[in-house]
Amino acid sequence: MRDIYIIKIGGNIVNNDNILKSFLKDYANINKLKILIHGGGIIANNIIDKMQLKVHMINGRRITDNMTLKVVVMSYAGLINKNIVALLQSFNVNSIGLCGVDGNIITAIKRPIIDSIDYGNVGDISCINVNNIIKLLKNNFHPVLAPITHDKNGNLLNTNADTIASYIASSLIKYYNVYLYYCFERDGVLSVINDNNSIILNINKSNFNKLKNKKLIFDGMIPKIDNSFYALNKGVKRVYICNYTYFNNKKRQKCKTEITL
Amino acid sequence: MRDIYIIKIGGNIVNNDNILKSFLKDYANINKLKILIHGGGIIANNIIDKMQLKVHMINGRRITDNMTLKVVVMSYAGLINKNIVALLQSFNVNSIGLCGVDGNIITAIKRPIIDSIDYGNVGDISCINVNNIIKLLKNNFHPVLAPITHDKNGNLLNTNADTIASYIASSLIKYYNVYLYYCFERDGVLSVINDNNSIILNINKSNFNKLKNKKLIFDGMIPKIDNSFYALNKGVKRVYICNYTYFNNKKRQKCKTEITL
Repeated sequence: MRDIYIIKIGGNIVNNDNILKSFLKDYANINKLKILIHGGGIIANNIIDKMQLKVHMINGRRITDNMTLKVVVMSYAGLINKNIVALLQSFNVNSIGLCGVDGNIITAIKRPIIDSIDYGNVGDISCINVNNIIKLLKNNFHPVLAPITHDKNGNLLNTNADTIASYIASSLIKYYNVYLYYCFERDGVLSVINDNNSIILNINKSNFNKLKNKKLIFDGMIPKIDNSFYALNKGVKRVYICNYTYFNNKKRQKCKTEITL
Repeated sequence: MRDIYIIKIGGNIVNNDNILKSFLKDYANINKLKILIHGGGIIANNIIDKMQLKVHMINGRRITDNMTLKVVVMSYAGLINKNIVALLQSFNVNSIGLCGVDGNIITAIKRPIIDSIDYGNVGDISCINVNNIIKLLKNNFHPVLAPITHDKNGNLLNTNADTIASYIASSLIKYYNVYLYYCFERDGVLSVINDNNSIILNINKSNFNKLKNKKLIFDGMIPKIDNSFYALNKGVKRVYICNYTYFNNKKRQKCKTEITL
């Protein structure tokens, strides 16, 4: 079986033109099958701001009312996605920008109201159309995925990009050796905020709870690690949380956090 | 050779939810290979308005400064494109939403300053990557194309959707019998404004100039007909300008304008 890299990049990479370009140059040189998944919350927030709408967040998750959905579709599946694809094409990667609705790649179910929190147009993934992903890969298209899904009834939904990366990775394990990378601006999961020397080299189920209890792992990092466990349980070979320069052969960071079961 | 329908829909269809849905239902039932190309200027203008930017038009063509480019990419390749794809997927069409950068389908050259008019980030098509279009068609993907192109140097460009339809149609003539349809809210090209009984059933090169001189054909209709001639010269079988209900088997309009050489 061939290797495939599923790489997710966060908002701080997407939001900085120089960092994004430098990452994509490295991404272009990865000599593997690959799928890129991007977030982009910061750019969406800027547009919400310009349109004089309000950003609603609960537990690090956006409340997606109808107008906010339009903005996230525009910014994720439009502006950010096509900008990334244009840069990759300039580096001769035959990238194709998609979201979950394209080729019916990701169907989702609108999240029900939980504990009286209505997340709005947020989708929890119900199905990955792995056949269509494989068709694209076999025809030498490199998918770039925006975190928008659909319910197959004509409605778009907003879905967490980390979760999409985990589900896409998991869907491919019968066909490829799958490696999942969560890339961001730090070198890994840190035990001391902003101290790149405090990387936790390995997080597994047994130390995860302790780290959570000590509040060394918190906020968005918790679902990211839960998504990593999900992927590993499904059969993904390796999951890493690493710096966006990880794929740069010159600067390559040796340190990163590996998630294991 | 198989038939393929290249169908372009204009802003007045895209801008009205009920009309769009009704058109897409009919589109879903077209039992041919097909590619849909959409405009969407009205929705882009609304967003420009909400973001308190200004719309600049010269001769019916948008002046695309950097901020306007962002808005047209967001609205064409994001909001409108993904909304259409979601509706088509709900009608069980395996649609895939793309713009010219995806799979490098349409490269363009930034339009030079002409007669001291700088159109900004507007692209004139230089190449259609027909191999990648055919790969998608052969794998049962139905492309839905937003009118955004790129220069292969990482820059997105705004390109007229009528022209894209004409070039895409022309690129496919070696492989398919190509039929090009420009669909809008009227039944064809009219000789009396708003009078659907005044359809000009045939426009050819010899009567086109007369109609222009009499100002019976004007504004955006002139480049649309020029695009039609371009496609016919390249070998497209038929070009029609027709109502968006043309593909509805029940309501089917018998009248339409056919463009011939």
